[in-house]
Amino acid sequence: MSRAVVLLSGGLDSATTLAIAKDDGYDCFALSCNYGQKHAAELRAARKVAKFLGAEEHRQIKIPIGEFGGSALTDKDVSVPEDGGDGIPVTYVPARNTVLLSLALAWAEVLEADAIFIGVNAVDYSGYPDCRPGFIAAFQQLVAVATKRTVEGGTISLVAPLIAFSKAKIIERGTALGVDYSLTVSCYQADARGRACGQCDACRIRADGFKAVGIADPTRYT
Amino acid sequence: MSRAVVLLSGGLDSATTLAIAKDDGYDCFALSCNYGQKHAAELRAARKVAKFLGAEEHRQIKIPIGEFGGSALTDKDVSVPEDGGDGIPVTYVPARNTVLLSLALAWAEVLEADAIFIGVNAVDYSGYPDCRPGFIAAFQQLVAVATKRTVEGGTISLVAPLIAFSKAKIIERGTALGVDYSLTVSCYQADARGRACGQCDACRIRADGFKAVGIADPTRYT
Repeated sequence: MSRAVVLLSGGLDSATTLAIAKDDGYDCFALSCNYGQKHAAELRAARKVAKFLGAEEHRQIKIPIGEFGGSALTDKDVSVPEDGGDGIPVTYVPARNTVLLSLALAWAEVLEADAIFIGVNAVDYSGYPDCRPGFIAAFQQLVAVATKRTVEGGTISLVAPLIAFSKAKIIERGTALGVDYSLTVSCYQADARGRACGQCDACRIRADGFKAVGIADPTRYT
Repeated sequence: MSRAVVLLSGGLDSATTLAIAKDDGYDCFALSCNYGQKHAAELRAARKVAKFLGAEEHRQIKIPIGEFGGSALTDKDVSVPEDGGDGIPVTYVPARNTVLLSLALAWAEVLEADAIFIGVNAVDYSGYPDCRPGFIAAFQQLVAVATKRTVEGGTISLVAPLIAFSKAKIIERGTALGVDYSLTVSCYQADARGRACGQCDACRIRADGFKAVGIADPTRYT
């Protein structure tokens, strides 16, 4: 059976992505990263989701990019805004998805995995550059020359199954695959019990998605 | 003054790279990574080198790729070979330079740095895929689409000044720039006091370099 590393934040998108990878027939190795995000509740959510969806293994690793600062998600002195505003918002974490994918690549090579799944989405999203198709394509090009496995003829495919989905379509697909969204945490500033603020960009996009698809929103709000 | 992030392992190549970045006029921010390498003595060497060469700041961060295994440099159950042999050797660390560059990229974006220096070399080297020009070019392509800074028109240049140098030429250049190579540790299995084995690939390539350029080798051997 083919193996896949699945980046699992504990949010709605990555939970759906894990369900899709399973449905595609992969043995799934879920990877969650503590990068100093304020919303550490999502890491507890990731554990529940990995267990619920039957990941082969779930690893949670610590990476020090939060120490570099430069983001409302990691810097205590910068507030999470209630409105995304224009351009790339302050919740952008410098090079986060590049770092996450590089770590997934390292594990994928050791596991002899054929694929890396990442739940980025470029439709109902916050405008981050590292969620767009061009970024995924460039990383795939990099993979081809970056590892022993790939230069010796193997393939590690980057799969971003949600990239062109609306949030409503993501929820529809995940629901069909049996994802329990009450386990997931999307909020950028969820409290210690995983309850969402209902105000930030992530909360707004999530709530709109449930509304659009006509499924009851299981999110617990503060 | 322009800023540069310089990846600094504590070995001969990265020390020379830091000296070149300084000579090119950059304010240098040195980044060293503890990735679970057996030769942790190189991290102590990095501190000495950063201080000696006047880095603006030196950060040492911990990243968990060693836990994934798959390399003689991080796995206690795999010996460092005394001969590289054919192909990519077991000292290759899966996706290491991809991970290191992605972390350097994160810091560079926060620092508003214009460049990232990396001391990879594709002439007198161990054959690792992520030391080759194609890898550096692919990562540069990725950078263009990966960060807020670059998609908004800024540039973060990847500089690999040693990539086409012989080891002898690296030593010549570094010596001209005042690098004290007695501070550096190249050995894949240096002891706790930073003394080299004299047998591994890294030791062999380094010793040959000093011999070729006719400079006394300051390496301390066990």
